[in-house]
Amino acid sequence: MKVHVYFNIAEAEAALQQEATVVVIDVVRATTSMVEALANGARAIYPTASTEDAVRLAHSFGREDTLLCGERRGVKVEGFDLGNSPAEYTAEVVSGKRLLMSTTNGTVAFVEAAEASRVLACAFTNLGAVADAIRGDDHVVVLCAGRLNRFSLDDALCAGHLLRRLGAGEPGGPEVNDASLAALMLAMVMEPTAERLGGMEAGRALIEIGLEGDLEVCAQVDRHAVVVEMKDQALMAGG
Amino acid sequence: MKVHVYFNIAEAEAALQQEATVVVIDVVRATTSMVEALANGARAIYPTASTEDAVRLAHSFGREDTLLCGERRGVKVEGFDLGNSPAEYTAEVVSGKRLLMSTTNGTVAFVEAAEASRVLACAFTNLGAVADAIRGDDHVVVLCAGRLNRFSLDDALCAGHLLRRLGAGEPGGPEVNDASLAALMLAMVMEPTAERLGGMEAGRALIEIGLEGDLEVCAQVDRHAVVVEMKDQALMAGG
Repeated sequence: MKVHVYFNIAEAEAALQQEATVVVIDVVRATTSMVEALANGARAIYPTASTEDAVRLAHSFGREDTLLCGERRGVKVEGFDLGNSPAEYTAEVVSGKRLLMSTTNGTVAFVEAAEASRVLACAFTNLGAVADAIRGDDHVVVLCAGRLNRFSLDDALCAGHLLRRLGAGEPGGPEVNDASLAALMLAMVMEPTAERLGGMEAGRALIEIGLEGDLEVCAQVDRHAVVVEMKDQALMAGG
Repeated sequence: MKVHVYFNIAEAEAALQQEATVVVIDVVRATTSMVEALANGARAIYPTASTEDAVRLAHSFGREDTLLCGERRGVKVEGFDLGNSPAEYTAEVVSGKRLLMSTTNGTVAFVEAAEASRVLACAFTNLGAVADAIRGDDHVVVLCAGRLNRFSLDDALCAGHLLRRLGAGEPGGPEVNDASLAALMLAMVMEPTAERLGGMEAGRALIEIGLEGDLEVCAQVDRHAVVVEMKDQALMAGG
């Protein structure tokens, strides 16, 4: 097994052209919200690169049973039903619904990875489920969504904890690249907490707009056992 | 003081447009070779983005007192005087000479950073000298050259050790970004050794072409007290 981490979307460009399982991580907050939505009964999530793409898709699906979701600069897009706070994705709101979602970094990563043989969404909240789902795969690309094509520590830390679950760094563990090694070392010295996430760039940006409460959910390891996997451009609960 | 690390050249693009001191790191091997050359009496090093640019510059300077230096795929460029092994840059060979240098990642980073208010070259071999030279600067961009715009652990580790020398993570220490925090954590748990560098991507690539001996020099912390700083497109020994 080979598990190569990439710290932003641009870094991963060549890797995404290869036959691989791609695990997308955007802890604060896209993949955390996706896990929450699917654990709470959403039917499917369609990630789009732009808000315009989400609106276009809403027109083609029809607005019934469809929710427009996403943020720009952390804040709900005007006219959309939901923003990107995990707490908004309750069973009451999302159960049975089709979600069309556009966020600054996370959903872009899914669009870039869409041609891969398997695509999964990973957050701290479904870490164990993802590890179990990919354990048999030969080549795994862990795609940290990052922040505008720059390194984001929350995503790197989650990648590192995923690597630990896969036995990286142990005898017989997966083959890794430099970014995997670095992520693994970070995970050896740091567990996620809301307070720690709040000291990182994405967390600080959330606190600035009054959404620090989101970090409590983002930091909860194994909150759900749900595997989030892409089928025909849509993320669905599976496993 | 603000010290923001970038793990590859593409990540740093916006940061390089700002008023800042830029510290370029390419441990394996460009900045290590540059430190070696200037510590051994080279007059100046002109980093170029392409081998063609180096050759053009050689024509304009004349070939007397001028050495063409650099690598592609780790190996000396055909027709050039020197490759990119630190051990080639002895006083006998480089003293009093003007070096025109083109490497795959490191010299490209200098060309990208050329408009910054200050530009310095950092390796483990001159770590302390660089830390002392920039301690008073308001805004420092640490530009890890990386490998073809991807993360490289040797450069990140060196950035982390530079941050430690600058008091990052201590009370009153510099303001940092996520990549700085990650680099700092790596430096807390890992000191550089030739063996460790040999387990990273750049080191493994060197070993494959039989140049593992270079790693001994690359891993030597504070081997020289030389500050390497850019003046009019040329890197010179200063302080």
